[in-house]
Amino acid sequence: MEIDSSNQEKSTGSSGGIKAITGKFKANVVEIVEKTKKLGQDDPRRVAHSAKVGLALTLVSFFYYFRPLYDGFGQAGMWAILTVVVVFEFTVGGTLSKCLNRGFATLLAGALGIAAEYLATLCGEKGEPVLLGILVFIIAATSTFMRFFPNIKRRYDYGVLIFILTFSLVAVSGYRVSQIIQLAHQRLSTILIGAATCIVISIFICPVWAGQDLHNLTATNIEKLASFLEGFGDEGSVVASKDDKSFLQGYKSVLNAKATEESLANFAWWEPGHGRFKFHHPWNQYLKIGVLARECACHMEALSGYIHSRPQVPSEFYGKIHQPCVKISLESGKALKELAAAIKNTIHPCDAETHVKNSKAAANELESILENSSLLSIQDDVQEIVPALVVASILINIINCVEEISDSIHELSEKSHFKNANSPEKQQQKQLLHRGIVKPITDDSCDHVVIEIHGTSEDNSSVPATKKDEAVHM
Amino acid sequence: MEIDSSNQEKSTGSSGGIKAITGKFKANVVEIVEKTKKLGQDDPRRVAHSAKVGLALTLVSFFYYFRPLYDGFGQAGMWAILTVVVVFEFTVGGTLSKCLNRGFATLLAGALGIAAEYLATLCGEKGEPVLLGILVFIIAATSTFMRFFPNIKRRYDYGVLIFILTFSLVAVSGYRVSQIIQLAHQRLSTILIGAATCIVISIFICPVWAGQDLHNLTATNIEKLASFLEGFGDEGSVVASKDDKSFLQGYKSVLNAKATEESLANFAWWEPGHGRFKFHHPWNQYLKIGVLARECACHMEALSGYIHSRPQVPSEFYGKIHQPCVKISLESGKALKELAAAIKNTIHPCDAETHVKNSKAAANELESILENSSLLSIQDDVQEIVPALVVASILINIINCVEEISDSIHELSEKSHFKNANSPEKQQQKQLLHRGIVKPITDDSCDHVVIEIHGTSEDNSSVPATKKDEAVHM
Repeated sequence: MEIDSSNQEKSTGSSGGIKAITGKFKANVVEIVEKTKKLGQDDPRRVAHSAKVGLALTLVSFFYYFRPLYDGFGQAGMWAILTVVVVFEFTVGGTLSKCLNRGFATLLAGALGIAAEYLATLCGEKGEPVLLGILVFIIAATSTFMRFFPNIKRRYDYGVLIFILTFSLVAVSGYRVSQIIQLAHQRLSTILIGAATCIVISIFICPVWAGQDLHNLTATNIEKLASFLEGFGDEGSVVASKDDKSFLQGYKSVLNAKATEESLANFAWWEPGHGRFKFHHPWNQYLKIGVLARECACHMEALSGYIHSRPQVPSEFYGKIHQPCVKISLESGKALKELAAAIKNTIHPCDAETHVKNSKAAANELESILENSSLLSIQDDVQEIVPALVVASILINIINCVEEISDSIHELSEKSHFKNANSPEKQQQKQLLHRGIVKPITDDSCDHVVIEIHGTSEDNSSVPATKKDEAVHM
Repeated sequence: MEIDSSNQEKSTGSSGGIKAITGKFKANVVEIVEKTKKLGQDDPRRVAHSAKVGLALTLVSFFYYFRPLYDGFGQAGMWAILTVVVVFEFTVGGTLSKCLNRGFATLLAGALGIAAEYLATLCGEKGEPVLLGILVFIIAATSTFMRFFPNIKRRYDYGVLIFILTFSLVAVSGYRVSQIIQLAHQRLSTILIGAATCIVISIFICPVWAGQDLHNLTATNIEKLASFLEGFGDEGSVVASKDDKSFLQGYKSVLNAKATEESLANFAWWEPGHGRFKFHHPWNQYLKIGVLARECACHMEALSGYIHSRPQVPSEFYGKIHQPCVKISLESGKALKELAAAIKNTIHPCDAETHVKNSKAAANELESILENSSLLSIQDDVQEIVPALVVASILINIINCVEEISDSIHELSEKSHFKNANSPEKQQQKQLLHRGIVKPITDDSCDHVVIEIHGTSEDNSSVPATKKDEAVHM
């Protein structure tokens, strides 16, 4: 109706009321279309996922539809449809988790249900419903309580749900045991068909790996923290630019990433090896990094209050303590950028250490400035100095955070065997080692080697960029 | 097996290996029992919930079990069991949300499915499966994509899932339309029976209201922030006590409350009026308060680094700026305590304003100390003064946060018509107003009135305590 009138609007234009309504309707439609477009453009995998669900459902519904199959499986064919709808999740890990939970829970509960049914028939006609009622109550109540255990809730919540459902259905079905086994066979095979369809489509058509997502999310979050610090360091020059707000908002999304990270880590646990990740990649390490990143973001929240605190006409002392602050901020930002790049390209984070050391050196410089320049010599306004001191103090806290993040990412790198960045210098050095010319000092931690032989690792700074390009095309 | 051997342990004790295994097993059992006890003691409603699910399932399974009913409803009886298992959630809001979603989605999808089936039969025997396949694909894909819209995901995710499921089942079932209507009738009535059982049990036996939980969670979180500030203010005297760690950890849980708050607010939206809350209580306001509380907790995270920064032998200047800091901390803490108590007892937060004003006065005092005492007069070590200045600066940020929280809670109080605290003074004043003796100035914001007539509202500070007791017994 409304669509019709909206089409006729121009030709008739008889009533202002109708015009207003159609106008509003048009605006709504345009808004929805735009929102839909944006959702699809933000993550095209959403469109692919929708098509995948449609495909899986269409395939499975043919089992139900075509008579030869239908006669073979009977009503049980609808379990295949039910399984697909309920089990197909956005990520491979989510789908696998639900499929495995559903499969094992159905098997276990089916066996228990048959046993319960058999036990109940032994109690005679009067005792049967009473015993079954008691059993259903006990199983349902204890299983429901089990869902409150955090460990069970995290991984097996859906399995426990299906366990309760299947046990109740089988125990109460009232069939003889021989009938039940036939029914169970039909149901299990249809569930298997549904689950297998989901798993195959989910893994082989545009797979969305929760592990890969978690990996990328962690790298992006560290990068956001880096942008904030770099933006804060550049403050004076950047304030007028358009990027101002984006670098200020980035860290806020880090603060809210906890729930997403945890669900991705849970799903990733179920996933087989994929791309650069093996089965049972240390996913929990990403959660640890996430905790530290949020702590760091918290300090940034405190820091963001001082973003415009720079005085119009800075005094000499202000300049003295402002310089190392800028350096701390920029170097910490660079360290985090390197760490993010290392995660993204799964290479060992070598150059981050240098930047952490530089920012620590700046912090020491700052401390010695404060120590040596007795306040007696300061002629400036306290109102001007206090914010600068606060910024300095929070930045020193941030260095500690960045160092912890760096340690945590090094741990990740070791646990999951990230490859070493093969810079020309290092290849050369490895060859020397091979020929026995240079005595090896340590090969694990690359900055040590670099410092011992080259004295500086500044030359390596261009390496991650080329590595990145390679990784993108891989 | 293992249980047997554990029983025989004392009498036989033949093998060390068995002993070790049974010992480990015993330890595991003890651990699980203790964890279970703790889960139950932490929130006894969990035990009640488990029993409620057991009860609902036992009741509904009798529909399926007893032959007269079974013959009436046929296989459809299992839909009642399925509904109970899937729909029964911990909170009333969760259960209602799922029941309503399931009901409406089933109705809508059933009708559409019948229409699709009818349309398909018009296409002849060859066209039927093709058209049905296309329809199932389109509906499944678009509905799945709809689940990515944040608004739909939040409230109607389960409904869309059931819509896809029911549409596929009905469209593909291959029955004639007349059969379908009979089947739909059976299925809908059994689903209704299941859903009604869940709703009745969930509302009338030990109900767990998501709204009440959200309300309490918000109050508790504000209280945790208050404890931190009061603990920080008392720092000198409390450090040695056992509470030290608990007040330091409280605010951390506030930082992680986002996901819980949002899911509770979503569930609360579905709940009818209960206790002190009407239908469509302004639940979103609690989310706003939550955002501010997390911001405040962030500043506390920054502050917590300075908890032991007090010098052993404080200098004169340190003492000068330390005093107002303690006052800011204590008064902000008191303000938050009052606000938390006001939320808990749903009374208008009157006394909080006074404490906010006091802490602001202390902040002004601090600023004037810093302004007047030129740094020239300071003879102390910079290393000692800087932390104190940082603490002062962060505390001033916290005052702003507390003020925003206070405003937000005042807004909540107005939107949801919290009652005014009926202190004797105010009752008397109301009577005077009633008799026309005192010209009313403003009756909405109680502190205004109190200031105008009594000059101080200190006498009211005992009121919330008695109010609290009343509320507990209500």
